Amino acid sequence: MQNGITAVLDQIDRDLPDSLERLFDLLRIPSISTDPAHAAEVDRAADWLVRELSGLGLAARKDATGGHPMVVADGGEDASGPHLLFYAHYDVQPVDPLDLWDRPPFDPELQDTDAGRVIRARGASDDKGQMMTFIEACRAWLKVHGRLPVKLTLCLEGEEECGSPSLVPYLEANRDSLRADLALICDTGLFDAQTPAITTMLRGLLGEEIIIHGPARDLHSGAFGGPAINPARVLARILADLHDVQGRVTVPGFYDGVPELTDDLRAQWDGLGFDADAFLGRVGLKHPAGEAGRTALEMIWSRPTCEINGMISGYTGAGFKTVLPARASAKVSFRLVGTQDPDRLRASFRDFVRTRVPADCRVEFLEHGASPASVMETAHPAFEAAREALSQEWPRPAAFVGAGGSIPIAGYFKSILGMDSMLIGFAKDDDQIHSPNEKYDLDSFHRGIRSWARILEAVSKV
Amino acid sequence: MQNGITAVLDQIDRDLPDSLERLFDLLRIPSISTDPAHAAEVDRAADWLVRELSGLGLAARKDATGGHPMVVADGGEDASGPHLLFYAHYDVQPVDPLDLWDRPPFDPELQDTDAGRVIRARGASDDKGQMMTFIEACRAWLKVHGRLPVKLTLCLEGEEECGSPSLVPYLEANRDSLRADLALICDTGLFDAQTPAITTMLRGLLGEEIIIHGPARDLHSGAFGGPAINPARVLARILADLHDVQGRVTVPGFYDGVPELTDDLRAQWDGLGFDADAFLGRVGLKHPAGEAGRTALEMIWSRPTCEINGMISGYTGAGFKTVLPARASAKVSFRLVGTQDPDRLRASFRDFVRTRVPADCRVEFLEHGASPASVMETAHPAFEAAREALSQEWPRPAAFVGAGGSIPIAGYFKSILGMDSMLIGFAKDDDQIHSPNEKYDLDSFHRGIRSWARILEAVSKV
Repeated sequence: MQNGITAVLDQIDRDLPDSLERLFDLLRIPSISTDPAHAAEVDRAADWLVRELSGLGLAARKDATGGHPMVVADGGEDASGPHLLFYAHYDVQPVDPLDLWDRPPFDPELQDTDAGRVIRARGASDDKGQMMTFIEACRAWLKVHGRLPVKLTLCLEGEEECGSPSLVPYLEANRDSLRADLALICDTGLFDAQTPAITTMLRGLLGEEIIIHGPARDLHSGAFGGPAINPARVLARILADLHDVQGRVTVPGFYDGVPELTDDLRAQWDGLGFDADAFLGRVGLKHPAGEAGRTALEMIWSRPTCEINGMISGYTGAGFKTVLPARASAKVSFRLVGTQDPDRLRASFRDFVRTRVPADCRVEFLEHGASPASVMETAHPAFEAAREALSQEWPRPAAFVGAGGSIPIAGYFKSILGMDSMLIGFAKDDDQIHSPNEKYDLDSFHRGIRSWARILEAVSKV
Repeated sequence: MQNGITAVLDQIDRDLPDSLERLFDLLRIPSISTDPAHAAEVDRAADWLVRELSGLGLAARKDATGGHPMVVADGGEDASGPHLLFYAHYDVQPVDPLDLWDRPPFDPELQDTDAGRVIRARGASDDKGQMMTFIEACRAWLKVHGRLPVKLTLCLEGEEECGSPSLVPYLEANRDSLRADLALICDTGLFDAQTPAITTMLRGLLGEEIIIHGPARDLHSGAFGGPAINPARVLARILADLHDVQGRVTVPGFYDGVPELTDDLRAQWDGLGFDADAFLGRVGLKHPAGEAGRTALEMIWSRPTCEINGMISGYTGAGFKTVLPARASAKVSFRLVGTQDPDRLRASFRDFVRTRVPADCRVEFLEHGASPASVMETAHPAFEAAREALSQEWPRPAAFVGAGGSIPIAGYFKSILGMDSMLIGFAKDDDQIHSPNEKYDLDSFHRGIRSWARILEAVSKV
């Protein structure tokens, strides 16, 4: 089969101009999912995909949902390898403010820049360009070998940029046809221009709002200051108590289920040469804060956190008002890792707060979501096979990495379909996704296609 | 002279219906100082006062200022007693919302209520009714004895309810003609319906705003949570550190210049039978907070405080946003007593904050005013004389009391004219000043006139 992959890669290289033309065709469709005025365009993009996938010989269809359609295609039924579910999305972000774009966002162009050639258009990176790396890899496989090396289902969403309202019901209603051995998700990035990555750890999130109620109304701080309790002071104490001097979260049981990094993963991460100074420097910071004794990368990818996302009390306008506020509130969120249990943590956090609410105050809690971390079973041989395949394509070896934020689809695949996901993508930090002048490096597109071809081959053998 | 005062009091009782008529005349003038459309009415009230005072034989005039006029009158030049400066104000608050009034606010009426007879009108208590208690007392003295027992200057302001913009320049420009031995200010209240009070301690105020700047922009808490510093957390720690577990303020040097109560004053206050439960109960609270081991009354009148008046950071709208805020700010004020120095405290507070600002954060301070406490020299024999005079008039003995808030005029008389002030008034907590259906008890008005007659007599002998 080694000869097999070489021929596929050659085919990809030869076909690159046509691959680009096809991507440009798709980029010309302004499939902005959040804007009802663009609903027909989203639908047109779905039709375009069904046509392309059918043209490859896949059994493609457009499934209606409560919102924008899901494009689904099956192929490789006769393949001996594992069954893979590929996910990407064909909808895009809005383009406002339009005057900050150098050219029309839906008129894609290949541009020469100091950093190489880039594809400039809305959706070039997020996520049409990424999605097409996979479809073009399939095309090359089919062209060279007449068949796919694995059984494959594609599931292409049209609502990712508007909160995926139909996704969970769709997955639940189509459990049987979508369940596979492993999911591939192409909506993430490279570690850096040289180094590909498979995201295997995604932090979960617990959101809470606490409202401390004190006096029945705002009071005059002259008339009542002293004997009347001040809810802002109570809240400040609670928020300050959430961390100890080492930067660790003090909520009882918080670190239950937080694993230490394995030696293997730590070695991989150390080998990445992550530049914490540059990372923080981009946002005006110089000194890693957070838990003492942890590296910045370790903290973002593998350590849980507690953050104050917002707080408000009393008078916050211009000037001054000597008010003693009747209430004070804060939004607090926890990023979760490993097997931290969001429901148990919510209860523990609320107990933590309640024990700090003094006489004459009352605390109200608002719930703002809870999802556990997604930690992939990298012991599955497909992970190591894909890592080796990526390492062959790119200048530096691929790494299993973490992600500080959540990618809900990976959680849904796990909870609804019982599958782990390999999150592999070729976007770069400077792709300006969700912003004007979005781009995708031609190198990301070209090597991305080649990467998927190699991964399909490697995974077919596990 | 004891016979002398008896005759004056008899005259006051006989003349009460006419005194009321004169007050009603003044109450009919809608002298709302904050509303430019009512400027002519404010002026008309000033003219009315000049006419009345001239009619008493005082040398009365209307002094122009940059805003509404000051009414000034001199009398008793031949008296042997001390020179007193009397202050009150003839302007009133706006009346909105008008539909919450039971009757037109500038059509005064004597009403029978369950709690006795009341004068209902805007300004009945604040401050026309109070002002007229003094003027009617002077009238009775002049009618019975043909002269005042003290040298007297009246200074009646028309801008108290709109921030007194002309007051300080006026006092500075008229230092020589206004300087007296002691000021009388009639704009405060009784301790309760039975118990008159002389306010001798007014807390000062220091206002500060602190803004903690962290990252260059709001960050995604998934992408940066952990290694990036969170200014909201820094602020919460600073605010929490401002008090110890005993409720004492921890800013170094904060208690310098804070006197303990004298035994005499403590005995007076204990004798007042202040109902802390009822006081807090009115605003939905049950448990005195603040410094351990201090009574509620002691805290409001004689102890310094530190209060958070407002704070804000990050996302504070509906729902949730996992933002790591770029900044966090709080408005903090200190009520000051004794000889606490606001300038030194400001410097100490800022040092306190600065030492708690970690690497990668920067603190910005905004100044929101600084005024020391006003503590009257009650050793001046006039204070004890006035207290005895009030005690003769009312069911329960008068007390020297404190006031939690500031009354700027007392500070100006001290700093600009070098005089202490006796703050004596007859308003009650339920007078609804600044609100619809303002009233003044007929008892406050009647006993108020009699109180001033007694005080003038008593002070004339010191």
